[in-house]
Amino acid sequence: MRIIGIDPGMAIVGYSIIDAQIIDGEEHYSVVESGSIQTDRSLDKPSRLLEISQDLSYLIGLYKPNVASVEELFFFKNAKTIVPVCEARGVILLTLRKFGISINEYTPLVIKQTVTGYGRANKSDVQEMIKLIIKSDQIPKLDDSSDAMAIAICHVRNCFASGTLNHITV
Amino acid sequence: MRIIGIDPGMAIVGYSIIDAQIIDGEEHYSVVESGSIQTDRSLDKPSRLLEISQDLSYLIGLYKPNVASVEELFFFKNAKTIVPVCEARGVILLTLRKFGISINEYTPLVIKQTVTGYGRANKSDVQEMIKLIIKSDQIPKLDDSSDAMAIAICHVRNCFASGTLNHITV
Repeated sequence: MRIIGIDPGMAIVGYSIIDAQIIDGEEHYSVVESGSIQTDRSLDKPSRLLEISQDLSYLIGLYKPNVASVEELFFFKNAKTIVPVCEARGVILLTLRKFGISINEYTPLVIKQTVTGYGRANKSDVQEMIKLIIKSDQIPKLDDSSDAMAIAICHVRNCFASGTLNHITV
Repeated sequence: MRIIGIDPGMAIVGYSIIDAQIIDGEEHYSVVESGSIQTDRSLDKPSRLLEISQDLSYLIGLYKPNVASVEELFFFKNAKTIVPVCEARGVILLTLRKFGISINEYTPLVIKQTVTGYGRANKSDVQEMIKLIIKSDQIPKLDDSSDAMAIAICHVRNCFASGTLNHITV
């Protein structure tokens, strides 16, 4: 399957689009595109949400992912920052649904657990594990994009573990 | 001006569309339409967000408001409920911006203060004051719709107070 992993935010939306397949029972990944949507901080919030909607629509039209994995938010340290992140998240979920993309949501704890085997892994641990999983040193430099890659891998492994292999066999 | 007041939510989005004008220095209101968008609880979140986007677009196309006033969230009691409310809020702001509607945001405290003169007014106080302001007993029965009416009135009064009278003279 071609999956888009998304790390939501108002200023930066990290994304990674990867092709995943199972060959002889092993997961294989190929990175299609990875980067971020960065909104103009001088604009008001509704205009930044419009940028996110338009840029994400462009990416979907170009790379045609059929599945999405989006980070879910339950617990948070800073109550003030949660508001714009969730507003951006609403726009991201709406845009994915408009394109008929299957949407899956995972908490940061589950993502870390699934990718590294340890729910409290730090960013460096996650990045090292991604290198091993995708068998490449070329992981995104931007944290938001490598987080998005972990989010995508989390869903692929979830499909793998749950036996929905036909979903991840190209 | 024709203003749409919006009380955001994932399950219920309250709205009130009113015409406001100043005649001889006094505010006059005429209620165009008031009600709520209620999303199907059996649907997943992305589909409910799509319902909100579609229903709000329909209302805007039908009644053509040129200004919007939306409740803003800063402080909250229940951290879990803030996530879906903000996701719906993001979709609402996006939809308004797509239609080129001028967007204004007010916190509950400012709305109560502006409508009743008292920031800690309860729902009953707000509803009684709305009756006096719109000079009608026909205020919406649903809390979310009467809240939306207060949100709309708040912006009109803010324009009045700030001297941008040309904005509220039809």
